[in-house]
Amino acid sequence: MIGQEIENLIRTISRLPGLGSRSARRIALFLVKNRNSQIETLVSALKEVQEKVKICPVCGNYDTLDPCSICSDNRRDEKTICIVQDVADLWAMERTSAFKGKYHVLGGVLSALDGIGPEDLGLDKLLQRVQSNNIEEIVLALPATVDGQTTSHYIAEIMRETGAKVSSLAHGVPVGGELDYLDDGTIQTALKARYTL
Amino acid sequence: MIGQEIENLIRTISRLPGLGSRSARRIALFLVKNRNSQIETLVSALKEVQEKVKICPVCGNYDTLDPCSICSDNRRDEKTICIVQDVADLWAMERTSAFKGKYHVLGGVLSALDGIGPEDLGLDKLLQRVQSNNIEEIVLALPATVDGQTTSHYIAEIMRETGAKVSSLAHGVPVGGELDYLDDGTIQTALKARYTL
Repeated sequence: MIGQEIENLIRTISRLPGLGSRSARRIALFLVKNRNSQIETLVSALKEVQEKVKICPVCGNYDTLDPCSICSDNRRDEKTICIVQDVADLWAMERTSAFKGKYHVLGGVLSALDGIGPEDLGLDKLLQRVQSNNIEEIVLALPATVDGQTTSHYIAEIMRETGAKVSSLAHGVPVGGELDYLDDGTIQTALKARYTL
Repeated sequence: MIGQEIENLIRTISRLPGLGSRSARRIALFLVKNRNSQIETLVSALKEVQEKVKICPVCGNYDTLDPCSICSDNRRDEKTICIVQDVADLWAMERTSAFKGKYHVLGGVLSALDGIGPEDLGLDKLLQRVQSNNIEEIVLALPATVDGQTTSHYIAEIMRETGAKVSSLAHGVPVGGELDYLDDGTIQTALKARYTL
């Protein structure tokens, strides 16, 4: 006996990632209660994004600028590009402020199971970008999964002819991590990659 | 270095209940990626609610009808009203389909700490509704907290003069619950209210 407008809002919200029907109901009720203040704000934020945000043709980032604010920032080192799987990973890298180069968003990783091959990731476009801009270093920040690492090795292989240095984020014990809670693979990798103090 | 339109959307989403900055980023990225399909749907669902949903003047439920679809449903027993704290609780009751009467949404419970007194909950309006409609039974479905139970007792007290029967949802072991995980208060209450098989 919930009105269909509210039911429809709950259904729409519950389709968002990470939200189940319970959290969707809670959010919908909050919006219904604050419909004069919150809905207006949310609708205008959504419309702004819908109207203005585009995919950067250079790196694949989302931005209102074309090329995006990272690609058009002259203070960033354009000879180093970091390769990430997704824009979420680009955001994660940016939050650290530790990387001062530019990016390339793959949009996925090679996957035999899902039938994703090199042509689906536009790796030829990446190769062309590296060659025509004389990129000096490619930092691979792909997921530490089997598919992610396969992709890293594949990219390292095709970049060999360009002469660019190819590196990857280090694998090991996460900062603040307890050994007891880590999987064997991570501990083995961290042991192999141990460094001298 | 995230564009301000996207930042603004993330900030707006993270203000919704139950969402932190991480889930807000995830939802925002999903919406940015699917901005042509999902944003349109979400915006129209939000606008429908904003334009049409009102508070029912009789029971306090949210609906597009006035009075709400529950209050105007003749098949429901209008001599029994269930008193809930919030519309979320009304929805929870309705999901069970176990209650066939009408509702009254208090909008809160008495609270000495938060300074919420009988006049803030409109209890005089409730009393008037009970008297003028010759309500026969009042089912209290208020939270099993100290404040909720205080409110239940207070309402039972002021309803004495109306002659209406006042009942409350039973307290005890939740269906499917393991004794080992229950708090002492619940077990004590369940023991006191034990029934003969």
